[in-house]
Amino acid sequence: MKKIINEPENFVKEMVEGIVAAHSDKIQLLNDDIRVLIRRDNPKKNKVGIVTAGGSGHLPTFLGYVGEGMLDGCAIGNVFASPSSQKMFDMIKACDFGKGVLCLYGNYGGDKMNFNMACELAEFEDIKTANVLVKDDVASAPYEKKDTRRGVAGMLYAFKIAGAAADEGLELEEVSKITQNALENIKTMGVALSPCIVPEVGKPTFSIEDDKIEIGMGIHGEQGIEVREMLKADEIADLIFTKINEELELKSEDEVSVTVNGLGATPLEELYIVYNRIYKILKEKNVKIIKPHIGEFATSMEMAGLSITIFKLNVETKRLLLKEAITPFYTNVNK
Amino acid sequence: MKKIINEPENFVKEMVEGIVAAHSDKIQLLNDDIRVLIRRDNPKKNKVGIVTAGGSGHLPTFLGYVGEGMLDGCAIGNVFASPSSQKMFDMIKACDFGKGVLCLYGNYGGDKMNFNMACELAEFEDIKTANVLVKDDVASAPYEKKDTRRGVAGMLYAFKIAGAAADEGLELEEVSKITQNALENIKTMGVALSPCIVPEVGKPTFSIEDDKIEIGMGIHGEQGIEVREMLKADEIADLIFTKINEELELKSEDEVSVTVNGLGATPLEELYIVYNRIYKILKEKNVKIIKPHIGEFATSMEMAGLSITIFKLNVETKRLLLKEAITPFYTNVNK
Repeated sequence: MKKIINEPENFVKEMVEGIVAAHSDKIQLLNDDIRVLIRRDNPKKNKVGIVTAGGSGHLPTFLGYVGEGMLDGCAIGNVFASPSSQKMFDMIKACDFGKGVLCLYGNYGGDKMNFNMACELAEFEDIKTANVLVKDDVASAPYEKKDTRRGVAGMLYAFKIAGAAADEGLELEEVSKITQNALENIKTMGVALSPCIVPEVGKPTFSIEDDKIEIGMGIHGEQGIEVREMLKADEIADLIFTKINEELELKSEDEVSVTVNGLGATPLEELYIVYNRIYKILKEKNVKIIKPHIGEFATSMEMAGLSITIFKLNVETKRLLLKEAITPFYTNVNK
Repeated sequence: MKKIINEPENFVKEMVEGIVAAHSDKIQLLNDDIRVLIRRDNPKKNKVGIVTAGGSGHLPTFLGYVGEGMLDGCAIGNVFASPSSQKMFDMIKACDFGKGVLCLYGNYGGDKMNFNMACELAEFEDIKTANVLVKDDVASAPYEKKDTRRGVAGMLYAFKIAGAAADEGLELEEVSKITQNALENIKTMGVALSPCIVPEVGKPTFSIEDDKIEIGMGIHGEQGIEVREMLKADEIADLIFTKINEELELKSEDEVSVTVNGLGATPLEELYIVYNRIYKILKEKNVKIIKPHIGEFATSMEMAGLSITIFKLNVETKRLLLKEAITPFYTNVNK
């Protein structure tokens, strides 16, 4: 396997430079720091700031979602590594518009520790913060231990809901509560067919046999539930749907949004074949799909595989999901 | 290598079903024919219809660009195979709004033959047609034989320009001429790192050695200019830019749009690293980039690699490029 890069140690720097060069109408670096991105425009004053942070290697997650209607700031680390608490603090400070800052991020040890430290620093400067963690990966721990689950592609929905709620001028506590409640109804599970290569390592950090599929693997290659013989698209859709629906318990006339997310190397054609099956399952149950997302939203560089996220909507989350958002990598214009 | 599919012979059908299920607000099948997609809304009457056709396996090309401001219709065949002339004719008929139809497609033998037949059938029914072929791949033939070149990712720009020109109510001859002139200034070249698998074949149809890169390979795996030892990102960008600029001859104060297009399995991070280099080269030359496109626009399923397209703009093509377009896979809202 080959990578189109220069010196591995410049991977993140050159990638971010490219993103800023391409999308300077929408985003900018904070104080020329290549690891902290904020919106180019001045977000409305007197709104809650929404920020996130995490390791690189998951584009468009996270930094692709900085923009109108979603994130106000994003700090990134090296590939699959958390940024420092100092950078998170700088970002929080820049994204405080007088109503406090919601730190919204995946449930990973490093990110959690650093965000906690950053929020303590913010407290010293009288900046109010709240933390909501994304724990949507149902394969990463059983229901009884759901507080230990990892955050994966469901993060996109969380960013969208929090961003839209903040734009309505709600208080930090309300934005946090709406986002937290939305997350109770956002469930994801994935499968992987091939590993990915961390640039500074230069070779796959694990392997999956040629005729096997890893059920429930995480976006950093965390071990899944089991390894199976390769499955057909419909079998993959059925298996993931069954697992997710054990918790969502969808019934007739429910409304959901569905994301079929490619992990990096899986063709868009295959994502639509899987979506087609999910669509049929939900149609059979008389569950309506609102604004499906099919494409690459949270990747693991060149990993082959996909994840499915189902977001069970209510009147409020449906309205927030459909609100306009315009970021370099995500546009919702309701047309 | 593994594919997430069901029966290989149902690959195209299930993929199109999934697309229609997901995007039925914007597109629909023509007479329930799974191989012909048209816009859901009624395009303005009395405008030139813009249609294309080609083999499957290149999402979002072609059918992802059916919608407001771009294509009115698209006929697709099996993977890498042209649709029949009958389907093309059905589409042309459905997309004639009284001002004739522009058939805009890549320069491949099968598509050309079938479109010619379809246009003859249209003539019998007094539907005026014109044909503009996309031949942007500078690696596929030397300049002296540029009429034999293949059409690749530059097609996206051609669809955008033609769609915007048609929306302005211009006549078929004018829309054709503007699109043809734009295409004289649209040049693409690609590199491939790995092959792709046609579902019904089930294994790669060719191979590229583990430490090699194929310079100039086509999007169906057509042979390139040469095979080299793997290159760095900047070397790839330099090599492609040099080749393209032999023909565009960019000079200070020129304006261009740039597409860095992933072929399927190349991470978005790597595309931005390459874009970063192109940006620097152009900045150095004092050439301004308008609306860059970085992502997957014309793929070869799970092929690893990328192409770079440079579109040298003038006042008219710049204006048309920036006009609004809203399709399932391409949105330009100028915000």
